[in-house]
Amino acid sequence: MHYQLYYWPMIQGRGEYVRLALEDAGAGYTDVARAKGGMGAMTKMMEAHKGTPPFAPPFLKAGSLVIGQTANILLYLGARHGLAPKAEGGKLWVHQLQLTIADFVLEIHDTHHPLGPSLYYEDQKAPAKKRSDEFWDSRVPKYLGYFEDLVQANRGAFVTGRRLTYADLSLFQIVDGLRYAFPKRMAAFEKNIPRLIALRDRVAERPNIQTYLASERRIPFNEEGIFRRYKALDL
Amino acid sequence: MHYQLYYWPMIQGRGEYVRLALEDAGAGYTDVARAKGGMGAMTKMMEAHKGTPPFAPPFLKAGSLVIGQTANILLYLGARHGLAPKAEGGKLWVHQLQLTIADFVLEIHDTHHPLGPSLYYEDQKAPAKKRSDEFWDSRVPKYLGYFEDLVQANRGAFVTGRRLTYADLSLFQIVDGLRYAFPKRMAAFEKNIPRLIALRDRVAERPNIQTYLASERRIPFNEEGIFRRYKALDL
Repeated sequence: MHYQLYYWPMIQGRGEYVRLALEDAGAGYTDVARAKGGMGAMTKMMEAHKGTPPFAPPFLKAGSLVIGQTANILLYLGARHGLAPKAEGGKLWVHQLQLTIADFVLEIHDTHHPLGPSLYYEDQKAPAKKRSDEFWDSRVPKYLGYFEDLVQANRGAFVTGRRLTYADLSLFQIVDGLRYAFPKRMAAFEKNIPRLIALRDRVAERPNIQTYLASERRIPFNEEGIFRRYKALDL
Repeated sequence: MHYQLYYWPMIQGRGEYVRLALEDAGAGYTDVARAKGGMGAMTKMMEAHKGTPPFAPPFLKAGSLVIGQTANILLYLGARHGLAPKAEGGKLWVHQLQLTIADFVLEIHDTHHPLGPSLYYEDQKAPAKKRSDEFWDSRVPKYLGYFEDLVQANRGAFVTGRRLTYADLSLFQIVDGLRYAFPKRMAAFEKNIPRLIALRDRVAERPNIQTYLASERRIPFNEEGIFRRYKALDL
Protein backbone atom coordinates (compact mmCIF):
# COMPACT_ATOMS: atom_id res chain seq x y z
CA MET A 1 0.00 0.00 0.00
CA HIS A 2 1.17 3.53 -0.80
CA TYR A 3 0.54 5.86 2.14
CA GLN A 4 -0.12 9.59 2.34
CA LEU A 5 1.45 11.28 5.35
CA TYR A 6 0.04 14.66 6.32
CA TYR A 7 2.26 16.86 8.47
CA TRP A 8 3.62 20.40 8.64
CA PRO A 9 6.15 20.69 5.82
CA MET A 10 8.83 22.79 7.54
CA ILE A 11 9.53 20.77 10.68
CA GLN A 12 10.37 17.28 11.87
CA GLY A 13 7.99 17.60 14.82
CA ARG A 14 5.74 14.68 15.68
CA GLY A 15 5.60 13.66 12.04
CA GLU A 16 9.23 12.54 12.27
CA TYR A 17 8.38 9.48 14.38
CA VAL A 18 6.08 8.35 11.57
CA ARG A 19 8.61 9.21 8.84
CA LEU A 20 11.29 7.12 10.57
CA ALA A 21 8.96 4.12 10.72
CA LEU A 22 7.93 4.44 7.07
CA GLU A 23 11.55 4.88 5.99
CA ASP A 24 12.93 1.99 8.02
CA ALA A 25 10.17 -0.26 6.68
CA GLY A 26 10.89 0.85 3.13
CA ALA A 27 7.21 1.71 2.74
CA GLY A 28 6.05 3.87 -0.14
CA TYR A 29 4.59 7.18 0.97
CA THR A 30 3.97 10.74 -0.11
CA ASP A 31 4.75 13.52 2.35
CA VAL A 32 1.69 15.40 1.14
CA ALA A 33 2.16 18.88 2.58
CA ARG A 34 5.71 19.13 1.22
CA ALA A 35 4.43 18.84 -2.34
CA LYS A 36 2.87 21.70 -4.33
CA GLY A 37 -0.66 22.43 -3.11
CA GLY A 38 -0.16 20.01 -0.26
CA MET A 39 -0.89 22.43 2.57
CA GLY A 40 -4.31 23.11 1.08
CA ALA A 41 -4.99 19.40 0.88
CA MET A 42 -4.00 18.95 4.52
CA THR A 43 -6.21 21.81 5.72
CA LYS A 44 -9.14 20.41 3.77
CA MET A 45 -8.79 17.03 5.46
CA MET A 46 -8.70 18.66 8.90
CA GLU A 47 -11.82 20.72 8.23
CA ALA A 48 -13.83 17.70 7.15
CA HIS A 49 -17.03 17.27 9.11
CA LYS A 50 -17.62 13.68 8.17
CA GLY A 51 -15.75 10.49 8.91
CA THR A 52 -12.78 10.77 11.23
CA PRO A 53 -11.34 14.30 11.06
CA PRO A 54 -8.05 14.48 12.96
CA PHE A 55 -7.53 17.00 15.75
CA ALA A 56 -4.06 17.88 14.48
CA PRO A 57 -1.28 16.61 12.19
CA PRO A 58 0.30 14.15 11.78
CA PHE A 59 -2.25 11.87 10.21
CA LEU A 60 -1.85 9.05 7.76
CA LYS A 61 -4.10 8.02 4.91
CA ALA A 62 -3.89 4.27 4.45
CA GLY A 63 -6.39 3.17 1.84
CA SER A 64 -9.79 4.18 3.16
CA LEU A 65 -8.50 4.78 6.71
CA VAL A 66 -7.44 8.17 8.03
CA ILE A 67 -5.42 7.62 11.21
CA GLY A 68 -4.41 10.42 13.57
CA GLN A 69 -2.22 10.68 16.68
CA THR A 70 1.44 9.72 16.26
CA ALA A 71 1.39 6.68 18.56
CA ASN A 72 -1.82 5.42 16.96
CA ILE A 73 -0.26 5.65 13.50
CA LEU A 74 2.75 3.71 14.75
CA LEU A 75 0.47 1.08 16.31
CA TYR A 76 -1.05 0.61 12.85
CA LEU A 77 2.25 0.63 10.93
CA GLY A 78 4.03 -1.55 13.47
CA ALA A 79 1.60 -4.40 12.90
CA ARG A 80 1.92 -4.16 9.11
CA HIS A 81 5.64 -3.72 8.69
CA GLY A 82 7.23 -5.94 11.31
CA LEU A 83 8.04 -3.02 13.59
CA ALA A 84 6.28 -4.54 16.61
CA PRO A 85 5.52 -8.02 17.93
CA LYS A 86 2.37 -9.70 16.62
CA ALA A 87 1.31 -11.20 19.97
CA GLU A 88 -1.07 -9.05 22.01
CA GLY A 89 1.20 -8.67 25.05
CA GLY A 90 4.19 -7.57 22.98
CA LYS A 91 2.10 -5.24 20.88
CA LEU A 92 0.66 -3.52 23.96
CA TRP A 93 4.10 -3.29 25.57
CA VAL A 94 5.68 -1.51 22.59
CA HIS A 95 2.68 0.81 22.37
CA GLN A 96 2.99 1.55 26.09
CA LEU A 97 6.63 2.55 25.58
CA GLN A 98 5.64 4.77 22.65
CA LEU A 99 3.00 6.51 24.78
CA THR A 100 5.64 7.14 27.44
CA ILE A 101 7.86 8.64 24.73
CA ALA A 102 4.88 10.79 23.65
CA ASP A 103 4.54 12.12 27.20
CA PHE A 104 8.24 12.95 27.17
CA VAL A 105 7.90 14.74 23.82
CA LEU A 106 5.19 16.95 25.32
CA GLU A 107 7.49 17.78 28.24
CA ILE A 108 10.32 18.58 25.80
CA HIS A 109 8.00 20.97 24.00
CA ASP A 110 7.00 22.57 27.31
CA THR A 111 10.64 23.52 28.02
CA HIS A 112 10.29 26.37 25.53
CA HIS A 113 6.52 26.81 25.88
CA PRO A 114 5.69 26.49 29.60
CA LEU A 115 2.92 29.09 29.41
CA GLY A 116 1.17 27.35 26.57
CA PRO A 117 1.51 26.42 22.90
CA SER A 118 -0.34 29.51 21.64
CA LEU A 119 2.21 32.09 22.87
CA TYR A 120 5.65 32.80 21.40
CA TYR A 121 8.82 31.64 23.10
CA GLU A 122 9.92 35.27 23.26
CA ASP A 123 6.97 35.97 25.56
CA GLN A 124 7.91 33.27 28.06
CA LYS A 125 11.71 33.23 28.25
CA ALA A 126 12.03 33.37 32.06
CA PRO A 127 9.51 30.58 32.77
CA ALA A 128 11.12 28.57 29.96
CA LYS A 129 14.48 28.79 31.72
CA LYS A 130 12.95 27.57 34.99
CA ARG A 131 11.12 24.76 33.29
CA SER A 132 14.26 23.71 31.41
CA ASP A 133 16.25 23.56 34.66
CA GLU A 134 13.56 21.39 36.22
CA PHE A 135 13.40 19.27 33.07
CA TRP A 136 17.11 18.45 33.21
CA ASP A 137 17.26 18.08 37.00
CA SER A 138 14.33 15.76 37.31
CA ARG A 139 12.53 14.69 34.15
CA VAL A 140 15.37 13.71 31.79
CA PRO A 141 16.98 11.43 34.39
CA LYS A 142 13.58 9.83 35.09
CA TYR A 143 12.58 9.21 31.47
CA LEU A 144 15.96 8.35 29.94
CA GLY A 145 16.94 6.38 33.04
CA TYR A 146 13.80 4.28 32.57
CA PHE A 147 14.69 3.43 28.96
CA GLU A 148 18.36 2.83 29.84
CA ASP A 149 17.26 0.35 32.51
CA LEU A 150 15.02 -1.44 30.03
CA VAL A 151 17.82 -1.90 27.50
CA GLN A 152 19.99 -3.30 30.27
CA ALA A 153 17.30 -5.58 31.70
CA ASN A 154 16.40 -7.01 28.30
CA ARG A 155 20.06 -7.62 27.45
CA GLY A 156 19.33 -6.93 23.83
CA ALA A 157 20.37 -4.47 21.20
CA PHE A 158 17.01 -2.70 21.45
CA VAL A 159 14.62 -1.48 24.11
CA THR A 160 12.39 -4.56 24.09
CA GLY A 161 15.15 -7.05 23.36
CA ARG A 162 16.73 -8.49 20.25
CA ARG A 163 14.40 -7.07 17.63
CA LEU A 164 13.98 -3.45 16.60
CA THR A 165 10.53 -1.87 17.07
CA TYR A 166 9.15 1.54 16.23
CA ALA A 167 9.90 2.59 19.83
CA ASP A 168 13.63 2.23 19.07
CA LEU A 169 13.29 4.51 16.05
CA SER A 170 11.60 7.08 18.28
CA LEU A 171 14.34 6.80 20.92
CA PHE A 172 16.90 7.53 18.19
CA GLN A 173 14.98 10.74 17.45
CA ILE A 174 14.81 11.65 21.15
CA VAL A 175 18.59 11.32 21.58
CA ASP A 176 19.39 13.25 18.42
CA GLY A 177 16.81 15.90 19.25
CA LEU A 178 18.18 16.48 22.75
CA ARG A 179 21.70 16.66 21.28
CA TYR A 180 20.49 19.35 18.91
CA ALA A 181 18.43 21.40 21.37
CA PHE A 182 20.63 21.16 24.46
CA PRO A 183 24.17 20.36 23.22
CA LYS A 184 25.94 21.21 26.50
CA ARG A 185 23.47 19.66 28.88
CA MET A 186 23.16 16.51 26.76
CA ALA A 187 26.93 16.12 26.40
CA ALA A 188 27.22 16.17 30.19
CA PHE A 189 24.33 13.75 30.63
CA GLU A 190 25.22 11.05 28.10
CA LYS A 191 27.60 9.23 30.44
CA ASN A 192 24.49 8.11 32.35
CA ILE A 193 22.87 6.40 29.38
CA PRO A 194 25.56 4.40 27.53
CA ARG A 195 23.17 1.67 26.38
CA LEU A 196 20.68 4.16 24.99
CA ILE A 197 23.49 5.88 23.06
CA ALA A 198 24.58 2.52 21.66
CA LEU A 199 20.96 1.84 20.67
CA ARG A 200 20.84 5.23 18.96
CA ASP A 201 23.97 4.31 16.98
CA ARG A 202 22.52 0.96 15.93
CA VAL A 203 19.44 2.71 14.57
CA ALA A 204 21.54 5.30 12.73
CA GLU A 205 23.52 2.54 11.04
CA ARG A 206 20.51 0.80 9.54
CA PRO A 207 20.74 1.11 5.75
CA ASN A 208 17.28 2.60 5.19
CA ILE A 209 17.77 5.09 8.02
CA GLN A 210 21.24 6.06 6.73
CA THR A 211 19.78 6.71 3.29
CA TYR A 212 16.91 8.69 4.74
CA LEU A 213 19.06 10.88 6.99
CA ALA A 214 21.30 11.79 4.03
CA SER A 215 18.32 12.63 1.81
CA GLU A 216 16.32 15.81 1.37
CA ARG A 217 13.35 14.01 2.84
CA ARG A 218 14.94 14.54 6.28
CA ILE A 219 14.11 18.11 7.27
CA PRO A 220 16.92 19.66 9.36
CA PHE A 221 16.25 20.48 13.01
CA ASN A 222 15.17 24.10 13.43
CA GLU A 223 13.60 26.50 15.90
CA GLU A 224 10.02 25.87 14.80
CA GLY A 225 9.90 22.23 15.87
CA ILE A 226 9.80 20.31 19.14
CA PHE A 227 13.57 20.40 19.64
CA ARG A 228 14.76 24.02 19.57
CA ARG A 229 18.26 25.26 20.19
CA TYR A 230 17.90 28.28 22.44
CA LYS A 231 21.25 29.07 24.06
CA ALA A 232 19.59 30.55 27.14
CA LEU A 233 17.99 27.18 27.93
CA ASP A 234 21.18 25.16 27.59
CA LEU A 235 23.31 26.70 30.33
CA MET B 1 -11.23 -12.15 34.43
CA HIS B 2 -10.68 -10.30 37.70
CA TYR B 3 -8.37 -7.33 37.20
CA GLN B 4 -5.96 -5.56 39.51
CA LEU B 5 -5.79 -1.81 38.99
CA TYR B 6 -2.74 -0.03 40.37
CA TYR B 7 -3.05 3.69 40.94
CA TRP B 8 -2.45 6.34 43.60
CA PRO B 9 -5.07 5.75 46.28
CA MET B 10 -5.92 9.37 47.18
CA ILE B 11 -6.81 10.84 43.78
CA GLN B 12 -8.95 10.25 40.73
CA GLY B 13 -6.13 11.31 38.41
CA ARG B 14 -5.46 9.29 35.28
CA GLY B 15 -6.65 6.14 37.01
CA GLU B 16 -10.21 7.47 36.88
CA TYR B 17 -10.50 6.92 33.12
CA VAL B 18 -9.74 3.25 33.74
CA ARG B 19 -12.06 3.02 36.75
CA LEU B 20 -14.96 4.45 34.72
CA ALA B 21 -14.43 1.84 32.00
CA LEU B 22 -14.20 -1.03 34.49
CA GLU B 23 -17.29 0.19 36.34
CA ASP B 24 -19.41 0.76 33.25
CA ALA B 25 -18.46 -2.69 31.97
CA GLY B 26 -19.33 -4.25 35.32
CA ALA B 27 -15.88 -5.84 35.36
CA GLY B 28 -14.50 -7.29 38.57
CA TYR B 29 -11.41 -5.48 39.81
CA THR B 30 -9.40 -4.68 42.89
CA ASP B 31 -8.15 -1.11 43.33
CA VAL B 32 -4.93 -2.46 44.79
CA ALA B 33 -3.29 0.60 46.35
CA ARG B 34 -6.48 1.51 48.25
CA ALA B 35 -6.34 -1.75 50.18
CA LYS B 36 -4.09 -2.40 53.18
CA GLY B 37 -0.48 -2.89 52.09
CA GLY B 38 -1.44 -1.92 48.55
CA MET B 39 0.99 0.97 48.17
CA GLY B 40 3.88 -1.36 48.89
CA ALA B 41 2.60 -3.81 46.30
CA MET B 42 2.36 -1.01 43.71
CA THR B 43 5.87 0.26 44.40
CA LYS B 44 7.23 -3.26 44.11
CA MET B 45 5.68 -3.70 40.67
CA MET B 46 7.17 -0.42 39.47
CA GLU B 47 10.64 -1.31 40.69
CA ALA B 48 10.64 -4.63 38.88
CA HIS B 49 13.56 -5.03 36.53
CA LYS B 50 12.08 -7.87 34.51
CA GLY B 51 9.13 -8.10 32.21
CA THR B 52 7.28 -4.88 31.47
CA PRO B 53 7.75 -2.45 34.38
CA PRO B 54 5.48 0.57 33.94
CA PHE B 55 6.90 4.10 33.89
CA ALA B 56 4.11 5.35 36.15
CA PRO B 57 0.64 4.44 37.44
CA PRO B 58 -1.99 3.65 36.35
CA PHE B 59 -1.30 0.11 35.25
CA LEU B 60 -3.55 -2.91 35.05
CA LYS B 61 -2.77 -6.51 35.78
CA ALA B 62 -4.88 -8.71 33.52
CA GLY B 63 -3.89 -12.34 33.97
CA SER B 64 -0.23 -12.53 33.02
CA LEU B 65 -0.23 -9.11 31.30
CA VAL B 66 0.81 -5.88 33.01
CA ILE B 67 -0.46 -2.97 30.92
CA GLY B 68 0.57 0.64 31.48
CA GLN B 69 -0.46 4.02 30.04
CA THR B 70 -4.11 4.98 30.46
CA ALA B 71 -5.04 4.98 26.76
CA ASN B 72 -3.30 1.64 26.26
CA ILE B 73 -5.27 0.10 29.13
CA LEU B 74 -8.49 1.41 27.58
CA LEU B 75 -7.49 0.00 24.19
CA TYR B 76 -7.20 -3.39 25.86
CA LEU B 77 -10.40 -3.12 27.93
CA GLY B 78 -12.40 -1.63 25.07
CA ALA B 79 -11.86 -4.70 22.94
CA ARG B 80 -12.87 -7.06 25.73
CA HIS B 81 -15.90 -5.31 27.18
CA GLY B 82 -17.75 -3.88 24.19
CA LEU B 83 -16.48 -0.35 24.87
CA ALA B 84 -15.06 0.08 21.36
CA PRO B 85 -15.82 -1.19 17.86
CA LYS B 86 -14.28 -4.51 16.86
CA ALA B 87 -13.35 -3.47 13.31
CA GLU B 88 -9.83 -2.07 12.89
CA GLY B 89 -10.90 1.34 11.59
CA GLY B 90 -13.34 1.93 14.42
CA LYS B 91 -10.91 0.67 17.01
CA LEU B 92 -8.17 3.03 15.81
CA TRP B 93 -10.61 5.96 15.64
CA VAL B 94 -11.75 5.57 19.25
CA HIS B 95 -8.13 5.18 20.37
CA GLN B 96 -7.20 8.31 18.41
CA LEU B 97 -9.91 10.25 20.27
CA GLN B 98 -8.65 8.90 23.58
CA LEU B 99 -5.10 10.01 22.77
CA THR B 100 -6.43 13.48 21.98
CA ILE B 101 -8.18 13.46 25.37
CA ALA B 102 -4.85 12.38 26.94
CA ASP B 103 -3.13 15.39 25.38
CA PHE B 104 -5.87 17.62 26.79
CA VAL B 105 -5.46 16.05 30.26
CA LEU B 106 -1.75 16.94 30.17
CA GLU B 107 -2.64 20.53 29.28
CA ILE B 108 -5.19 20.62 32.13
CA HIS B 109 -2.46 19.49 34.51
CA ASP B 110 -0.11 22.16 33.15
CA THR B 111 -2.56 24.92 34.15
CA HIS B 112 -1.44 24.51 37.75
CA HIS B 113 2.05 23.16 36.98
CA PRO B 114 3.43 25.18 34.04
CA LEU B 115 6.99 25.07 35.37
CA GLY B 116 6.99 21.31 35.70
CA PRO B 117 5.44 18.44 37.62
CA SER B 118 8.22 18.28 40.23
CA LEU B 119 7.58 21.73 41.74
CA TYR B 120 4.71 22.75 44.02
CA TYR B 121 1.83 24.89 42.76
CA GLU B 122 2.71 27.43 45.44
CA ASP B 123 6.05 27.97 43.70
CA GLN B 124 4.49 28.75 40.32
CA LYS B 125 1.31 30.71 41.01
CA ALA B 126 1.94 33.59 38.60
CA PRO B 127 2.88 31.40 35.60
CA ALA B 128 -0.09 29.16 36.46
CA LYS B 129 -2.42 32.14 36.17
CA LYS B 130 -1.01 33.03 32.75
CA ARG B 131 -1.19 29.47 31.53
CA SER B 132 -4.79 29.14 32.78
CA ASP B 133 -5.81 32.30 30.91
CA GLU B 134 -4.25 30.94 27.72
CA PHE B 135 -5.85 27.56 28.35
CA TRP B 136 -9.34 29.04 28.52
CA ASP B 137 -8.81 31.56 25.71
CA SER B 138 -7.39 29.13 23.24
CA ARG B 139 -7.09 25.49 24.22
CA VAL B 140 -10.49 24.70 25.79
CA PRO B 141 -12.38 26.09 22.77
CA LYS B 142 -10.13 24.10 20.43
CA TYR B 143 -10.40 20.75 22.24
CA LEU B 144 -14.01 20.88 23.43
CA GLY B 145 -15.11 22.48 20.16
CA TYR B 146 -13.59 19.53 18.33
CA PHE B 147 -15.55 16.99 20.38
CA GLU B 148 -18.75 19.08 20.18
CA ASP B 149 -18.43 19.10 16.38
CA LEU B 150 -17.96 15.33 16.33
CA VAL B 151 -21.11 14.69 18.36
CA GLN B 152 -23.00 16.95 15.98
CA ALA B 153 -21.53 15.44 12.83
CA ASN B 154 -22.23 11.88 13.94
CA ARG B 155 -25.81 12.74 14.91
CA GLY B 156 -25.66 10.22 17.69
CA ALA B 157 -25.91 10.19 21.41
CA PHE B 158 -22.16 9.65 21.74
CA VAL B 159 -18.97 10.99 20.23
CA THR B 160 -18.57 8.28 17.61
CA GLY B 161 -22.30 7.77 16.99
CA ARG B 162 -25.01 5.65 18.45
CA ARG B 163 -22.94 3.43 20.71
CA LEU B 164 -21.04 4.39 23.82
CA THR B 165 -17.26 3.88 23.84
CA TYR B 166 -14.62 4.42 26.50
CA ALA B 167 -13.95 7.84 24.94
CA ASP B 168 -17.43 8.95 26.04
CA LEU B 169 -16.71 7.87 29.61
CA SER B 170 -13.53 9.96 29.50
CA LEU B 171 -15.40 12.98 28.13
CA PHE B 172 -17.81 12.70 31.06
CA GLN B 173 -14.80 12.93 33.38
CA ILE B 174 -13.38 15.92 31.47
CA VAL B 175 -16.64 17.88 31.78
CA ASP B 176 -17.09 17.08 35.46
CA GLY B 177 -13.43 17.80 36.16
CA LEU B 178 -13.52 21.21 34.49
CA ARG B 179 -16.73 22.00 36.41
CA TYR B 180 -14.94 21.17 39.63
CA ALA B 181 -11.65 22.95 38.93
CA PHE B 182 -12.94 26.05 37.14
CA PRO B 183 -16.59 26.49 38.22
CA LYS B 184 -16.95 30.08 36.98
CA ARG B 185 -15.09 29.72 33.72
CA MET B 186 -16.82 26.45 32.89
CA ALA B 187 -20.29 27.83 33.72
CA ALA B 188 -19.66 30.64 31.24
CA PHE B 189 -18.29 28.27 28.60
CA GLU B 190 -20.92 25.52 28.64
CA LYS B 191 -23.30 27.36 26.31
CA ASN B 192 -20.80 26.59 23.52
CA ILE B 193 -20.94 22.83 23.99
CA PRO B 194 -24.59 21.79 24.47
CA ARG B 195 -24.15 18.40 22.80
CA LEU B 196 -21.14 17.53 24.93
CA ILE B 197 -23.08 18.44 28.07
CA ALA B 198 -25.96 16.21 26.92
CA LEU B 199 -23.46 13.40 26.31
CA ARG B 200 -22.08 13.93 29.82
CA ASP B 201 -25.62 13.61 31.23
CA ARG B 202 -26.25 10.41 29.28
CA VAL B 203 -23.10 8.87 30.73
CA ALA B 204 -24.02 9.98 34.26
CA GLU B 205 -27.43 8.30 33.94
CA ARG B 206 -26.06 4.88 33.07
CA PRO B 207 -26.95 2.51 35.94
CA ASN B 208 -23.43 1.23 36.57
CA ILE B 209 -22.00 4.75 36.48
CA GLN B 210 -24.73 6.05 38.81
CA THR B 211 -23.95 3.28 41.28
CA TYR B 212 -20.23 3.94 41.03
CA LEU B 213 -20.48 7.71 41.52
CA ALA B 214 -22.58 7.19 44.64
CA SER B 215 -20.16 4.64 46.09
CA GLU B 216 -17.03 5.02 48.18
CA ARG B 217 -15.07 3.68 45.24
CA ARG B 218 -15.39 7.13 43.62
CA ILE B 219 -12.74 9.30 45.26
CA PRO B 220 -13.89 12.93 45.56
CA PHE B 221 -12.11 15.58 43.48
CA ASN B 222 -9.35 17.26 45.48
CA GLU B 223 -6.30 19.47 45.14
CA GLU B 224 -3.83 16.62 44.66
CA GLY B 225 -5.26 15.38 41.36
CA ILE B 226 -5.38 16.62 37.76
CA PHE B 227 -8.41 18.87 38.31
CA ARG B 228 -7.68 21.30 41.16
CA ARG B 229 -9.91 24.08 42.39
CA TYR B 230 -7.61 27.05 42.89
CA LYS B 231 -9.70 30.23 43.08
CA ALA B 232 -6.91 32.34 41.65
CA LEU B 233 -6.99 30.37 38.40
CA ASP B 234 -10.76 30.60 37.93
CA LEU B 235 -11.21 34.38 37.60
